[in-house]
Amino acid sequence: MTSRVAPPSPGAERRLAVIDMGSNTFRLVVFRYRPGGSFQLVDEIRDAVRLSAGAGPQGLHPDSLERAAHTVRLYAAFCAHAGLEAVDAVTTSAARDAANRDDVMEALTAGGALGVRVLSAEEEAWYGYLGVVNSTTLGDGHVLDLGGGSIQISRVVGRGLERVVSRPLGAVRMTERFLPGERASRGEMKALRKHAARELGEVGWLSALGGRMVGIGGTIRTLARMHQRAVRYPLDELHGYMLPRDGIEELIERMAAAPASERSRIAGLKPDRADITLAGAIVISTAMDYLGVQRIEICSQGLREGLFYERFLAPAEPPLIADVRRQSVLNLADIYRCEMPHAERVAQLALGVYDELARLGLHTLDRRERELLWAAAILHDAGVLVDYNDHHKHGFYLILNAGLPGYRHHELAMVALLVRAHRKALPSADPLADIVGGAGAEALGRMAVCLRIAEQLERGRAGGVRRLSADARDGLLRLEVDAEGDPTVALWSAAQEAPAVEAAFGRRLELALA
Amino acid sequence: MTSRVAPPSPGAERRLAVIDMGSNTFRLVVFRYRPGGSFQLVDEIRDAVRLSAGAGPQGLHPDSLERAAHTVRLYAAFCAHAGLEAVDAVTTSAARDAANRDDVMEALTAGGALGVRVLSAEEEAWYGYLGVVNSTTLGDGHVLDLGGGSIQISRVVGRGLERVVSRPLGAVRMTERFLPGERASRGEMKALRKHAARELGEVGWLSALGGRMVGIGGTIRTLARMHQRAVRYPLDELHGYMLPRDGIEELIERMAAAPASERSRIAGLKPDRADITLAGAIVISTAMDYLGVQRIEICSQGLREGLFYERFLAPAEPPLIADVRRQSVLNLADIYRCEMPHAERVAQLALGVYDELARLGLHTLDRRERELLWAAAILHDAGVLVDYNDHHKHGFYLILNAGLPGYRHHELAMVALLVRAHRKALPSADPLADIVGGAGAEALGRMAVCLRIAEQLERGRAGGVRRLSADARDGLLRLEVDAEGDPTVALWSAAQEAPAVEAAFGRRLELALA
Repeated sequence: MTSRVAPPSPGAERRLAVIDMGSNTFRLVVFRYRPGGSFQLVDEIRDAVRLSAGAGPQGLHPDSLERAAHTVRLYAAFCAHAGLEAVDAVTTSAARDAANRDDVMEALTAGGALGVRVLSAEEEAWYGYLGVVNSTTLGDGHVLDLGGGSIQISRVVGRGLERVVSRPLGAVRMTERFLPGERASRGEMKALRKHAARELGEVGWLSALGGRMVGIGGTIRTLARMHQRAVRYPLDELHGYMLPRDGIEELIERMAAAPASERSRIAGLKPDRADITLAGAIVISTAMDYLGVQRIEICSQGLREGLFYERFLAPAEPPLIADVRRQSVLNLADIYRCEMPHAERVAQLALGVYDELARLGLHTLDRRERELLWAAAILHDAGVLVDYNDHHKHGFYLILNAGLPGYRHHELAMVALLVRAHRKALPSADPLADIVGGAGAEALGRMAVCLRIAEQLERGRAGGVRRLSADARDGLLRLEVDAEGDPTVALWSAAQEAPAVEAAFGRRLELALA
Repeated sequence: MTSRVAPPSPGAERRLAVIDMGSNTFRLVVFRYRPGGSFQLVDEIRDAVRLSAGAGPQGLHPDSLERAAHTVRLYAAFCAHAGLEAVDAVTTSAARDAANRDDVMEALTAGGALGVRVLSAEEEAWYGYLGVVNSTTLGDGHVLDLGGGSIQISRVVGRGLERVVSRPLGAVRMTERFLPGERASRGEMKALRKHAARELGEVGWLSALGGRMVGIGGTIRTLARMHQRAVRYPLDELHGYMLPRDGIEELIERMAAAPASERSRIAGLKPDRADITLAGAIVISTAMDYLGVQRIEICSQGLREGLFYERFLAPAEPPLIADVRRQSVLNLADIYRCEMPHAERVAQLALGVYDELARLGLHTLDRRERELLWAAAILHDAGVLVDYNDHHKHGFYLILNAGLPGYRHHELAMVALLVRAHRKALPSADPLADIVGGAGAEALGRMAVCLRIAEQLERGRAGGVRRLSADARDGLLRLEVDAEGDPTVALWSAAQEAPAVEAAFGRRLELALA
């Protein structure tokens, strides 16, 4: 197959395991990737080890270390059998600060069998930052990371990490110190708020920053999940979710009203997080208040992904994806095996029609809309992987459920809806009308016309259409096409989009050879 | 990654285009495949050319040939740009029987640019047969193929094609001869039935065959789609659907009640088939009556797939997939990139648990159930391709919508439900309870237990469990596991399936080291 755009020539497929031994949770994740190509998380084991539970002046508790050692042995056996290129194992706050460091490392390395790096607070923040900037469009703002042991706040300027502060305000630590019982009293909660505010107040540059804030870590994800359930959010996607501070306060009230052992009845709260999430929520809300932000943008990536990106993007320094949104689209196109030459020609034609319609004043050119149209054109055949029949519907499912890091939820919904609308039934915003809104539903009809006409013109897959121009008068939309070879079928095919044009623009479609 | 079963080492990926110039419809399809590996239909262009429309003693009509020539030029341009290994273009009844053969071939080859084979009736039946036996479990029975020009009936014995008959009873031909008007009268329909019965009656070996009958071709697929809509069938899958003769008779009544131009209002009937489907339905129903079969099993594959299989399976002669059901599962596992060593270990363990439970009399060993459990185990991680989170739900979607040729619909539903039930929420037959039935829903719970325990024992991916045995007494189900390395976590993980065991068998689960 020939392509006008040189395809990337990625290397052979590899597998990397990242082991993250956090203060609350241990996680082993496996990424499958091709350097310079696509990547995907393909395996995960999660264990609520509670490494920092019961820690005191003597260091981490022997029971905790025993639980940790069991889990690490499992992970080491896993890694020995998983065909991995490399294993990157790290541990953070709990181990870093422990007095009995030798015992801790004995447990975490399975007696030396597994190489484990103890990350400094700065390194921990660095990898969290890499996870965030490579999966969001954050250019300037802050990253808030609440772990089991500590909170990290990072300032990002021009996509660079400018400064970091770490404070021992983690969810497990604060639970043990302030809310250790079955019931959390008003007084205890107030004391925790006061303590958190005081700790943060010691950092001069922190106060009332405002601006964009991205949140990472298990506690923040849990709160976002709980909030989505509470408001019956129609998408099942955490990454990119906007969690408002007043929503966190409502969740704090709901959790505080129940004893710790019954909190997991609240939708979205896992049993192994039921006790520590209240303290975590209070720390986060206090931090948001102190920093002057009203909402936090959920990022489901973080430390583990940051470690992965460093390897995936090597030797780039700093390891930053140049264009996160573009990479998200191309990543899915590769995973779902879209035929790129065809996809790129459809994208080119769809944008050509879009620009012509804007030139005629039939719609206002909108750069964001234009980019969504490009994304949908690249991914329009993704569903073929499931079944050629109804592949527009399968593409909708595949895109919506995989997500597109860097795209807002309403944008993700729009791309998925456009893909569904690229053939067969006319565009409809159902069941995502609430997400895209009235204006979005209207734009969907206009944009789908561009995609449908492009797909019809490329029906012969021959890339024959060289140029197109449009004209609009007397209730007509006339498209003139300059094509190689025999354009009869291309024109006849495109003419079938008359109903879509009528529905979106109230005009009759006419097609002609230039 | 190591594997106990040697994986196939398939060749490099290839693309084959098949062009089928039928009497009613032209179709270009593209298969992506690796010899000895998986295959998939990845592209399709369909044109209602109506090659045989208006044909008379002088041969095919010039207007038909002009339409055909346009379409063929499009297909030729497509093939020149699609990176294909080969193009296999064939034509059948209409061209075969035409008096103006030279003009026909001039049009169908785009003036000699495209090599086109005119298949004999026997060859046409042969490739249809190859499509059927490689996508169903048909061992002994008949294949009924209704095209635009002719009907073919093939007798299959021991998976071999024994004999074939072809009669010029195609849907386009019969429409033009018997039902040419907007309204079909009772008298016209009766005359068509009589004609079809007489034509079939001339074939000695045909009468009252009974047994299993598989139907292929666009008319039969259309009738099946219409019937599914009429009965609000819960699955969106034609292949494997059982179409009853009385259902066809009801559809004949509904079509006959409307003028031809309004029949496409009937759900499932495409506009470009609205006029010819009535005559086709009458021929099929007449044939079923004459042959003594009450239902016809829909096969969505046929001639085009037969042509593909010949190349895909080369040099095998005859080109038959040894085990269609097994190949269907392995095909999906490859397309969805399941990690086979893990999948195979989970399958082995799940079947081990299943057999032990049968030995203890906790359920009756059922070979079909056992095979479904194997299929679900092989495919249990298919959904990871979409997103690791909720991959059990994504796997359900991917399997149900891709289908498993050779499996009955209730079996396909069962595999998809089992995959969904392999982690997280306990098994439920929703929304496919009507398909699997009450006994199926009950079996689902028992089978899911086997899969869940197997997955937990393989949580470390290390293949450490060598042997397991079960014991049942005093309300307990005790599993003893013989394992390499440290089995603590494996046992602890498997113990988490106690609620599933309780729900399915009313017993407490206990795990121990052998």
